[in-house]
Amino acid sequence: MGEFELIDRFFRRNGAAAANAPSGVVLGIGDDCALLAPRPGMQLAVSCDMLVEGRHFLSTVAPEMLAHKALAVNLSDLAACGAQPLAFTLALSMPRADEAFLAPFARGLFALADAHGIALVGGDTTAGPLNVCVTVMGEVPAGQALRRSGARAGDRVWVSGRLGDARLALEVFRGTLTVSGDVFADTRRAMEMPQPRVALGVALRGVASSAVDLSDGLLGDLGHVLKASHVGATLDEATLPCSDAVAALDIPWRRTCLLHGGDDYELLFTAPAASDAAVMAAAATAGVPVTAIGRIDAEPGLRLRDAQGQAVGAPLRGFDHFAAETTATVP
Amino acid sequence: MGEFELIDRFFRRNGAAAANAPSGVVLGIGDDCALLAPRPGMQLAVSCDMLVEGRHFLSTVAPEMLAHKALAVNLSDLAACGAQPLAFTLALSMPRADEAFLAPFARGLFALADAHGIALVGGDTTAGPLNVCVTVMGEVPAGQALRRSGARAGDRVWVSGRLGDARLALEVFRGTLTVSGDVFADTRRAMEMPQPRVALGVALRGVASSAVDLSDGLLGDLGHVLKASHVGATLDEATLPCSDAVAALDIPWRRTCLLHGGDDYELLFTAPAASDAAVMAAAATAGVPVTAIGRIDAEPGLRLRDAQGQAVGAPLRGFDHFAAETTATVP
Repeated sequence: MGEFELIDRFFRRNGAAAANAPSGVVLGIGDDCALLAPRPGMQLAVSCDMLVEGRHFLSTVAPEMLAHKALAVNLSDLAACGAQPLAFTLALSMPRADEAFLAPFARGLFALADAHGIALVGGDTTAGPLNVCVTVMGEVPAGQALRRSGARAGDRVWVSGRLGDARLALEVFRGTLTVSGDVFADTRRAMEMPQPRVALGVALRGVASSAVDLSDGLLGDLGHVLKASHVGATLDEATLPCSDAVAALDIPWRRTCLLHGGDDYELLFTAPAASDAAVMAAAATAGVPVTAIGRIDAEPGLRLRDAQGQAVGAPLRGFDHFAAETTATVP
Repeated sequence: MGEFELIDRFFRRNGAAAANAPSGVVLGIGDDCALLAPRPGMQLAVSCDMLVEGRHFLSTVAPEMLAHKALAVNLSDLAACGAQPLAFTLALSMPRADEAFLAPFARGLFALADAHGIALVGGDTTAGPLNVCVTVMGEVPAGQALRRSGARAGDRVWVSGRLGDARLALEVFRGTLTVSGDVFADTRRAMEMPQPRVALGVALRGVASSAVDLSDGLLGDLGHVLKASHVGATLDEATLPCSDAVAALDIPWRRTCLLHGGDDYELLFTAPAASDAAVMAAAATAGVPVTAIGRIDAEPGLRLRDAQGQAVGAPLRGFDHFAAETTATVP
């Protein structure tokens, strides 16, 4: 199967699916470029993530879930900016162009794309080591994008959904932790099929003072917000939302999953304490639970308190794709 | 060196370079998304190409030239649409994050980016087999993008620059052809440092009836135009512009380089015969030579005439990234 037949068979859509492309897409797959027409007053938010076998996904992953995740992690970046997804490109390098891989891959891709009403508008396919690169584009009203730099002392720190399940699943795959079959199915789903919080991001426009999506672990990603906003934070460990399975872990592993987990793809955001009702209304609109987990301080640095209010002094690590773990010590 | 340090050291720009970002770039590297603000009345053209070692470039390529080419092939797609480049994202997977690779890679990337006044606004870096994926975004006035579908019977077929040098260099690397050292340097430069015809594409807005960039070989890419436009074409082989080195090849190799070459990154476009003066004016504006090589026919199919006006009946092949060569027979 050649490159053009491959694109025609698996990635070019016809009929109803093509007709459902968002109105901002003027021209999709098939020319040198796609053409997008953002609506007046809108800015275009752009993000790009590349997934590599063995680094971002296990060789055992089902193609359907790989495609889902490749798009989901990009949509999660749009969500963190409060942007409404519009279109995406897909570049796919794979050892062989076979139907057994491509059919479920395309199915997983379009299931998530359709759920968010966005169109695949272009890309590239080539032979090579398995690598999936998605670039996503979304619209946000000018000046309303959520940024990492807007956190202010006194703001509350919030997180959507729950943390740590994806890391727990990874450790089970690695053989370092064991859980029951039911628990494994749930946590594996969190790892392989993250749900980008797009509706929440949009609902938080004008409400949140800053936002970031959790891809590298709570502490690492919060660190980006603190650095960009020139502030510090204090988190209350006991408030971190998690599954019963993560809650049942011993303290070191629980902290690893909750604080350094990676692959959560939840939104971490801040909002003035006076906006609690607006935050809860946004969460209700989006149908996503949110939890207050701490506060922003004027004093730089990241402080963590345990259930007794005592400072946690363990090294706080984030995830880095070149160094397996980076360390930062909490004062 | 971690991912964030790597981005800071090699890909985030400060001072004058950052200040020179195009006005359409509201927010660049450093948040979950970049923010672009296309000007009123502009559409956004988007293209994405992924380069894989051994498939799109040789392991011997200098990092500086690899970066140049990864951006150039994308700019070439914008050129084929008549779009003015605005910004790009870079996703880079590499076995090791070392300065010996990254410093010249960044140098080559920004040299070409600066030449076109565009900003790197985001992306991803990860460990993995060497893979470079660029997504480029440009602006084009609504309704003025050059498309593959606009060729009409009677139009002249034009090509920019000259054809076949990149293929000749590839064959020298493969050991199938030999040339002198000076010739090799010139042809290698064509292969490794293609110059995207951006100014020509912009100048051809409202002049060309269709356009495509030559990445897979003249016949293959012309085939895309003919298919999209529901027309045929007759090309005059003797008119195909080429270097003395390609002209000196025997006929089978000359045809391989000129017709099926690949990696030319010239613009192939059509325009009404009455627009010859406008085409030449556009070429002069852009400072790029253009050559008329044939005409569009109402009759489907692609016909090639030799210098004596005789039909060339050899199989006409294009390049495909899964099948090494695809064949199509000329009637």
